[in-house]
Amino acid sequence: MSSELNFKIEKRLKDRLGRVGILETPHGKIETPAFIVVGTKATVKSLSPEDVKEIGAQAVLANTYHLYLEPGDELVANAGGLHKFMNWDGPTFTDSGGFQVFSLGSAMEDKANKFGSKTNLEVQPPSVCKEDSVSKLSKIDEDGVTFKSHIDGTSHRFTPERSMEIQHNLGADIIFAFDECTSPLASREYQKEAMNRTHRWAKRSLDRHNELGGPQSLFGIVQGGRFEDLRKESAKEIASLPFDGFGIGGSFEKEDVYKALVWVNEVLPENKPRHFLGIGAVEDLFGGIENGVDTFDCVAPTRMARNGALETKEGRMNIMNAKFKTDFTPIESDCECYTCKNYTRAYLAHLFRAEELLAYRLASIHNLHFVVNLVKKIRQSILDDNFFEFKEEFLKRYKVIKL
Amino acid sequence: MSSELNFKIEKRLKDRLGRVGILETPHGKIETPAFIVVGTKATVKSLSPEDVKEIGAQAVLANTYHLYLEPGDELVANAGGLHKFMNWDGPTFTDSGGFQVFSLGSAMEDKANKFGSKTNLEVQPPSVCKEDSVSKLSKIDEDGVTFKSHIDGTSHRFTPERSMEIQHNLGADIIFAFDECTSPLASREYQKEAMNRTHRWAKRSLDRHNELGGPQSLFGIVQGGRFEDLRKESAKEIASLPFDGFGIGGSFEKEDVYKALVWVNEVLPENKPRHFLGIGAVEDLFGGIENGVDTFDCVAPTRMARNGALETKEGRMNIMNAKFKTDFTPIESDCECYTCKNYTRAYLAHLFRAEELLAYRLASIHNLHFVVNLVKKIRQSILDDNFFEFKEEFLKRYKVIKL
Repeated sequence: MSSELNFKIEKRLKDRLGRVGILETPHGKIETPAFIVVGTKATVKSLSPEDVKEIGAQAVLANTYHLYLEPGDELVANAGGLHKFMNWDGPTFTDSGGFQVFSLGSAMEDKANKFGSKTNLEVQPPSVCKEDSVSKLSKIDEDGVTFKSHIDGTSHRFTPERSMEIQHNLGADIIFAFDECTSPLASREYQKEAMNRTHRWAKRSLDRHNELGGPQSLFGIVQGGRFEDLRKESAKEIASLPFDGFGIGGSFEKEDVYKALVWVNEVLPENKPRHFLGIGAVEDLFGGIENGVDTFDCVAPTRMARNGALETKEGRMNIMNAKFKTDFTPIESDCECYTCKNYTRAYLAHLFRAEELLAYRLASIHNLHFVVNLVKKIRQSILDDNFFEFKEEFLKRYKVIKL
Repeated sequence: MSSELNFKIEKRLKDRLGRVGILETPHGKIETPAFIVVGTKATVKSLSPEDVKEIGAQAVLANTYHLYLEPGDELVANAGGLHKFMNWDGPTFTDSGGFQVFSLGSAMEDKANKFGSKTNLEVQPPSVCKEDSVSKLSKIDEDGVTFKSHIDGTSHRFTPERSMEIQHNLGADIIFAFDECTSPLASREYQKEAMNRTHRWAKRSLDRHNELGGPQSLFGIVQGGRFEDLRKESAKEIASLPFDGFGIGGSFEKEDVYKALVWVNEVLPENKPRHFLGIGAVEDLFGGIENGVDTFDCVAPTRMARNGALETKEGRMNIMNAKFKTDFTPIESDCECYTCKNYTRAYLAHLFRAEELLAYRLASIHNLHFVVNLVKKIRQSILDDNFFEFKEEFLKRYKVIKL
């Protein structure tokens, strides 16, 4: 492996799998646990890289599927890679493209409403690559997946090798093996079949990654759905391969999440970092970290921000509520973010009503600042030996409102 | 007058009406000539106040009509005024509301296409308060104008007194008398009638402004359409009133603009500042300054930016042109703006295609930087005694492309 990744654990959470560490990448270090900001199309929606840095975010995760389709991974390579293209000099991740291939690049439209979209955090968005979706727009076979672009309906094909080539063109510090993301409702039989395919794809991803060379680090992805034996089997298999770290994938029913993390993280080697793919709502962060997650990524903070759902220590508030029109206090009076230091709820309510572009930026700054810094506080609480007190205090106050 | 405005002329352009000056307001000085950035609804579209400052902009002009409707001038007053509400601590202007009352707040929809919108700079957008519009949604009488909101169709009434009360609530440093903005196609008879009404309204605006007191400065507006005698008569009448400065209003056919400026500015007293309302396209700046304009405002730079029309010294370029998809150079290689220092045309082309919000911000930063700094260079050229050389050189290279 040519990886330049270095992961050091600084402290462990007593009687739990959680830990505090430092992950060193070619573009700088990430103090873990950390919330990784999502920059789907090589831009964190509505923010500049300076905004992202001022928030305190340490790294950005971009989406392979999206960048492959628009503007194209070769164009990004010609631009000098993701960092240079988007003017972000810190650490970066790209996902494998699997999740979007199975959701966006297929028959998402007739499934999304049934299972909830990514903004509905009760259930993670389903992939449609389960038994009843064989006839849908994305077609899976042993070698890879053929799918139709959600933009223009053109046909494309991803294989583990192709995903590696695309991610090498994009050039992020941390990249992921190509996997099959299954629905939480898929049968045990299908989960097992898909998991075994993901394991074969993991080896092919590793082989192609090593052939391509370079300083990027490759994470293998653990699947196995909601089944304890499958999750453990997948963790064991992926852990046996020379990956630089691990991604924990799949869609979860809320109640299964923490159990699955324990099953997986008890098996994965302690000395390598673990990324929880696509999960990172406020209410999930404590449980994720407690159970051994080092990094998270999630679109929820920015997507909710653009919908006017703003995070506070009491839970989310909807800025469109009429009472905020004349509320001349900040979103949170003790918040240190740019938005709270300079603007009132009344001004935000005005900007949202007028559909002014500044609304989305100010709201995204606040929500990302909230989540990124909450994870930093959780990190500090582990260092200070008061994680459980901090968790209890925070969650007692924070009301989860489904939006 | 309680005005705190102080205007000093530093240098005059030989054989022309142009001049370089410094305008001191309660929120800081403006080096004139200056391009005033438009912040219609108490936000410069897509930009933060820090962006506006970094561009080099000295002052912001907000729209009375828009803020009266949304969020309401009393709310802005309760927020501590426009400066505090929008987090802009530099000088501010508000227009009188007249222009929008006669265009947006009436039957704009059936006129806009005929005469061109504010983005088509050949002809300024028409008001519809001319003879054939008596039956339209905005109704004018001696006392004021009744109009329907373009947002929800509710009925509202502006009078000179009401415009002053609203502008005092908003609290900008420089405010304008309530005027009737006529179409460039209106007959001489109607122009004269409207002009005389504007003069009577000017006196009523002054009276109410003085009753209300405070540190704001009031500018009177010269009208008179395309007719030399009316323009001169209007300038003489408005100049005779104790205004702190002047606005030059009305809609113009392009070829009439500079003539009208000479007619008016030869009459207006030299020692008071002159603002050219709603005009400030690149190709108009030299002529405006040469003929005695001190400040401009115009939505064109930001509106064009959001449409992907970017200013360069060669003229406007359309970033959606296919050739820019793989162009890894900045918009302008010698431009000092944040966008050009950090991003390529290819990245901007990607952001515009993906409809990413950052596109509008980066493009607006570049276009405003271009215009604001062009006016600064023109100012410097007057100080350096090479205005005419600079003008010739610039306009020879700059190709006006109608978008």
